[in-house]
Amino acid sequence: MPALFAESALLADGWARDVRIEIGETGDVESVTPGAAPDGAERAGGMVLPGMPNLHSHAFQRAMAGLGERAGAGADANADDSFWTWRQVMYGFLARLTPADVEAIAAQLYVEMLLAGYTAVAEFHYLHHAPDGAPYDDPAEMSGRIAAAAESAGIGVTLLPVLYAAGGFGGQAPNPGQRRFLHDGDGFARLLDTLFARHRDDRQVRVGMAPHSLRAAPPEVLRDALAHLGSLDAEAPVHIHIAEQTKEVEDCVAWSGARPVEWLLANMPVDGRWCLVHATHMTETETERAAASGAVAGLCPTTEANLGDGLFPLARFLAAGGRIGVGSDSHISVSPVEELRWLEYGQRLTRQRRNIVRDAAGPSVGAALYRAALAGGAQAAGRPVGCLAPGCRADLVVLDPDHPQIAGRADDVALDSFVFSGNRNPVRHVMAGGAWLVRDGRHVRQAEIAARYLETVRKLG
Amino acid sequence: MPALFAESALLADGWARDVRIEIGETGDVESVTPGAAPDGAERAGGMVLPGMPNLHSHAFQRAMAGLGERAGAGADANADDSFWTWRQVMYGFLARLTPADVEAIAAQLYVEMLLAGYTAVAEFHYLHHAPDGAPYDDPAEMSGRIAAAAESAGIGVTLLPVLYAAGGFGGQAPNPGQRRFLHDGDGFARLLDTLFARHRDDRQVRVGMAPHSLRAAPPEVLRDALAHLGSLDAEAPVHIHIAEQTKEVEDCVAWSGARPVEWLLANMPVDGRWCLVHATHMTETETERAAASGAVAGLCPTTEANLGDGLFPLARFLAAGGRIGVGSDSHISVSPVEELRWLEYGQRLTRQRRNIVRDAAGPSVGAALYRAALAGGAQAAGRPVGCLAPGCRADLVVLDPDHPQIAGRADDVALDSFVFSGNRNPVRHVMAGGAWLVRDGRHVRQAEIAARYLETVRKLG
Repeated sequence: MPALFAESALLADGWARDVRIEIGETGDVESVTPGAAPDGAERAGGMVLPGMPNLHSHAFQRAMAGLGERAGAGADANADDSFWTWRQVMYGFLARLTPADVEAIAAQLYVEMLLAGYTAVAEFHYLHHAPDGAPYDDPAEMSGRIAAAAESAGIGVTLLPVLYAAGGFGGQAPNPGQRRFLHDGDGFARLLDTLFARHRDDRQVRVGMAPHSLRAAPPEVLRDALAHLGSLDAEAPVHIHIAEQTKEVEDCVAWSGARPVEWLLANMPVDGRWCLVHATHMTETETERAAASGAVAGLCPTTEANLGDGLFPLARFLAAGGRIGVGSDSHISVSPVEELRWLEYGQRLTRQRRNIVRDAAGPSVGAALYRAALAGGAQAAGRPVGCLAPGCRADLVVLDPDHPQIAGRADDVALDSFVFSGNRNPVRHVMAGGAWLVRDGRHVRQAEIAARYLETVRKLG
Repeated sequence: MPALFAESALLADGWARDVRIEIGETGDVESVTPGAAPDGAERAGGMVLPGMPNLHSHAFQRAMAGLGERAGAGADANADDSFWTWRQVMYGFLARLTPADVEAIAAQLYVEMLLAGYTAVAEFHYLHHAPDGAPYDDPAEMSGRIAAAAESAGIGVTLLPVLYAAGGFGGQAPNPGQRRFLHDGDGFARLLDTLFARHRDDRQVRVGMAPHSLRAAPPEVLRDALAHLGSLDAEAPVHIHIAEQTKEVEDCVAWSGARPVEWLLANMPVDGRWCLVHATHMTETETERAAASGAVAGLCPTTEANLGDGLFPLARFLAAGGRIGVGSDSHISVSPVEELRWLEYGQRLTRQRRNIVRDAAGPSVGAALYRAALAGGAQAAGRPVGCLAPGCRADLVVLDPDHPQIAGRADDVALDSFVFSGNRNPVRHVMAGGAWLVRDGRHVRQAEIAARYLETVRKLG
């Protein structure tokens, strides 16, 4: 494809002018040259940012966004609602989904992600089997649907098949709502083998794994799965839900004498391959040790607020050198800027101070948040994304210079305005893997993917 | 105009089917008939909701949205940033604005409000004079610009000229950054007289007043202004910023021995005409007394988060029968749904529970929030808005039934999805005062108003 020319682009070491970006046949960036001439290159049509990796997604939940906001949804209509009553609603919803439903929902979600400026997604997918719990003929049927949806929308994906082997700490029996999630060790190893065989050389798909949580992945099963994953790919990403809810912390202490993050850091080889999703409830010591591990904290502020999880100890984690990224998780919001602004706002509200997240590159809070989430999101994705540099995927966003939220602003000030200002979307064009997927605010397959989604949600009722 | 026919509409007593809405020449609703035939009526094209009143706006701040998110913006670059350092940035920004700038900014803002589903706004406007502090030839020059912008965009407006007479509690001298705001008692009375003379019979403009805060409005000046307002209109709305910041609470206690809300309730005739804007920092007793006063709490969750104000004691206030509405205030967000969802989310995060705001009409949290904000917003606006009933302004929003956030859902479930789900805007058409202003997601004067806004922000640089 022809080179791309941007009058202004955010590179790894800051803003650059007159940037020529050469993109190869593989969809990787081949070269990035500031101060270049536009000769023969396509004009970007606005300031260029690396696209944001979305590090935590349960795609099917997109179709139930909005259905959990009803009081008394749990078994006991008079009890307070909580994460756990929401989980009952979610189990009821997913019980009816077919593979085709999941593909239609995921494709719509991924179109919405691209429109909002997410160009990669880590899909933490636990819906593996038929409604009665029986495996499909293809053990990777559901993973394949996710991959097909990602391909159809054009977004890069990190497939994280979920290891779910127990209903609670200490190997408790699963409940019927969990039967579509379950694997024993051998079954899970076969799923990994299948996915690695299919996607080994796929530039748009990376395979890793996701032990669902310490309550669902008993230690021996988890160790075996990690060893098997390591034999397939020593660098593959590992994501786990951890310390999201205080009940989970209490149950973990009752089981092991240790808190979840404390137990994980002491018993598993946590390092830069790992993404600790939520990690909401940590002591100061856990916060500092988690930061020192090199793992990414996978933060999902809109979902964590919607579910009443609590606030991540962001300032302390960052001060200890911790790495962060963001995810849309349950997809009650699908917007990197709503995640980033409310990540910062949670800190402002509790500290009654402003401009909490800062970095050494300048005074801009929006830029500090955006840069941190690019780097952490890329690490968690385990793919070369989140930067405009040779060898990275050509994943980028062009902001509309005439959009009323951005107009008259440049560089970090424009990025502050993108992150903090307004609700209309200034994302004009989006490229992922070298392909233009969004042009002038429309996805290239938007109508056809939306039509299939509408048919699916109307059928689900 | 012809009648409007909606297959589904949210009326005061709940959802109704096949609703025929007759609208008179004045822009008021004349009749609302459920179970009617569509004969000769215009089809609404989706579910119909009353438009949301926005009860707190400082229009000019729209053009600085995004500019305050830079660390070290205050006089001391090493100090923590706070509301007070943000205020310095804001004073610097407004010092350069001309009346034409304010009109261009306000018109763009009001278009954005309408696109998002706000159909009325209470404009708390304190920028009255020339940059050197001298009055303009017309004492209502700036108020007139707001009214002209509202007319141009078509939104209904409650003009709340701000009484600003001191720089701090106890009649402290104002600082130079405040000189464009100041009136003595006579000057303010003349401004009220002028505005009432101009808008006495205007169905789209209501006049009230806004003592800026207890720090800016000394008791005697405030009492005189209230008396003068009462002589012009005994029912006119009165809005005041109160207890937004802990420093303000401390300063008020140092001055009077009482906290701001405590002082106000003991010393001023607070009743249903009043809107207590923010009211963030209240004791339990203040919360219960404020609720019992009949005043509306004017809540601005996105701005209160952006400024690091803190969280309003919502659950206690509602339990005590308090009335609430929402405003976009500094306009870092312009969306009723971002306000409503984060109003609820603030409570979820602190209580680690879900579905906090409920009402007797049903289990839907989105509907409970929306209905509460319609009623409170209308009360604070002092205009017959926020409902679809005879005598109310014909202010309404039509949601797109084929939008992926709403499709397949009806009534309260669709309203939950509107409030809680997603970031793309399912508002399809918007009517205010009987006129269609937004059709298929575009404001009827969007291009011309945006062009003037872009010219203005580019000039401001």
